Amino acid sequence: MSFEQRRGSPRGESEQMIGKTPAEAGYRMRAEWEPHERCWIAWTSEKAWQREWLEPAQKAIATLAKTISGFEPVTVAVRPSDVETARMLLDPAVTVWEVEFDGGWSRDIGPTFVVDAHGQIAGIDWQFNSWGYKLETYADDAAFAERLLHSTGLPRFAAPIVLEGGSIHVDGAGSVMVTESCLLNPNRNPALSRREIEVNLKQWLNVEQVIWLGQGLIDDLTDGHVDNLACFVSPGVVLALDCDDPADANYAALKDNIVRLSHARDAQGRSLEVVTVCQPTPIYDGTRRLSLSYVNFYLANGAVIMPEFGDAPESRPKGDRKDREAVDTLARLFPERTVLTIPSLDILRGGGGIHCMTQQQPLTFCFGN
Amino acid sequence: MSFEQRRGSPRGESEQMIGKTPAEAGYRMRAEWEPHERCWIAWTSEKAWQREWLEPAQKAIATLAKTISGFEPVTVAVRPSDVETARMLLDPAVTVWEVEFDGGWSRDIGPTFVVDAHGQIAGIDWQFNSWGYKLETYADDAAFAERLLHSTGLPRFAAPIVLEGGSIHVDGAGSVMVTESCLLNPNRNPALSRREIEVNLKQWLNVEQVIWLGQGLIDDLTDGHVDNLACFVSPGVVLALDCDDPADANYAALKDNIVRLSHARDAQGRSLEVVTVCQPTPIYDGTRRLSLSYVNFYLANGAVIMPEFGDAPESRPKGDRKDREAVDTLARLFPERTVLTIPSLDILRGGGGIHCMTQQQPLTFCFGN
Repeated sequence: MSFEQRRGSPRGESEQMIGKTPAEAGYRMRAEWEPHERCWIAWTSEKAWQREWLEPAQKAIATLAKTISGFEPVTVAVRPSDVETARMLLDPAVTVWEVEFDGGWSRDIGPTFVVDAHGQIAGIDWQFNSWGYKLETYADDAAFAERLLHSTGLPRFAAPIVLEGGSIHVDGAGSVMVTESCLLNPNRNPALSRREIEVNLKQWLNVEQVIWLGQGLIDDLTDGHVDNLACFVSPGVVLALDCDDPADANYAALKDNIVRLSHARDAQGRSLEVVTVCQPTPIYDGTRRLSLSYVNFYLANGAVIMPEFGDAPESRPKGDRKDREAVDTLARLFPERTVLTIPSLDILRGGGGIHCMTQQQPLTFCFGN
Repeated sequence: MSFEQRRGSPRGESEQMIGKTPAEAGYRMRAEWEPHERCWIAWTSEKAWQREWLEPAQKAIATLAKTISGFEPVTVAVRPSDVETARMLLDPAVTVWEVEFDGGWSRDIGPTFVVDAHGQIAGIDWQFNSWGYKLETYADDAAFAERLLHSTGLPRFAAPIVLEGGSIHVDGAGSVMVTESCLLNPNRNPALSRREIEVNLKQWLNVEQVIWLGQGLIDDLTDGHVDNLACFVSPGVVLALDCDDPADANYAALKDNIVRLSHARDAQGRSLEVVTVCQPTPIYDGTRRLSLSYVNFYLANGAVIMPEFGDAPESRPKGDRKDREAVDTLARLFPERTVLTIPSLDILRGGGGIHCMTQQQPLTFCFGN
């Protein structure tokens, strides 16, 4: 009858594969705003990060992990060769899990957790091909989700399609949001038609409604993950990245996505309420435009952990204060949550943001939710 | 500009006493539902707990600490002689702070944290006389708040009156709720009149409105702390303990308190909305009735951590399901929070509940709150 006994996590059990799809077995992915048991983060890797980015990125990840640990337990996956450095930089409250990987980014290489009606939890282990072969070697990234599930003793659904966690956003109630530029990209599942991709999403995420956005951010190495573009913030409400400069390279794609969302219906047949937030001031790394987005935040228990990119008035020309506008928008959308910002440029250089860097494991027993 | 730099906690600074009252210095106690940086808990002590209670209580406290650590960082104060046992039982995510104390109960011996308009945090160090001399020696309990503030480098307000944290509940907006049975008890501040107590509460808690309840629970060793009787749950809304049996020894006091609350006004001049929750089924330890209350819960970041006393239908006669009713009430009052229950009888034997066992340190920088 105690809380511990009630928890659904069969920690320490041996590996178990569920030979059905989540839809057949009655599991579903919860919305990110539902309570979490833990946040999973992956450290940097010399295999994928340029040498000069490593140290600043590690410091930024340590700040991110410590900040999230103020609201829920955090485990950071660290390659064996980096454990010493990581332990030095990470707050003692953060757990270190030693494991090999290539690029990291736990949103994309980690399992997608799903829960059944009895609070049993499992993870979907998607096929992973390094965002359409962006890294030459990715065997350890591809094995990451299975290793994580094995280490926690959680059952595993082995999905037959290539997919990254950052390319889907669900409302936990039957709807998923994806992009054509990523999910229909021939570098992912070339043998599958749009219709077959939809069937797979419905089976593996246990959803009824697929909402298609079009293109992603310019220069986005993920081919346009939805988690840089839009997300559900509550049932029937989405936040979408917007652009106020018609000359900007992202203008057409972002406006098209907002139009698509305003015409979309969710699994309940509702029109979506679309709230927008203007994209950050562009920042370049050489000729490459960084994929900056305020939509790429993480919802921790009771908190919103969002990026800041340093264009606050003290560091930029007057009037250029997108960071502050985004904070105000998120504070308005999540009045019950603490909104905290993390300076994120040093993470962004690695190709992803705060949402890409994190993966929530839902809390599988609680009253009232 | 980073989150860390913005935090108000001047950790590691030398001790600093503020020679004013919080009202003069512009500090106020926040509501418990505002975001927390940390939860402080004190371990058991052989000086105050009967030997046969120790082990079950330690296990229950370890469960409590682990559960809260799912939502915010937790530090457990442990006497030097108990550190080995405590570290064995406590989850590694929980920080141990080695310090001497007598009875423990961090709500009552810890500082009451207050924050100013710039996010500077400090602690009020009340006079402590062991709940009106209930323990013979209490010098270490009385020194606990100062030691905690010293160890964290936080400034200290030294209050001249005897008061325990469990005897006050604030709404964070100018109102405090107290009981006559405790605050006017001659074993606390015999030289002060009711009016002088009010003046002190207004100065030290920086409030404008004092709401007086009458008597506490029967056999409550604290002389009737308010945190077993009623608490604010949101601006203008209180939850009060109720009793449905006119023959029960708590009936008259609880009904009187509900009537007082329904006639009370808060600092904004509002009538209070009073929600009630029926008290738990009585449980006795020998001839002493345990001071059981569902109001004695803790609000962690994004969560409600509440007691359960084991009268769920599987263990008791049908229809006797006060635990479940209380969970439903709290889930309704806090729809945005995860509600979790902790089996609490083993803590209760020591004289207090979950709220008595905890002390929140507010988060001093965040956007949107």
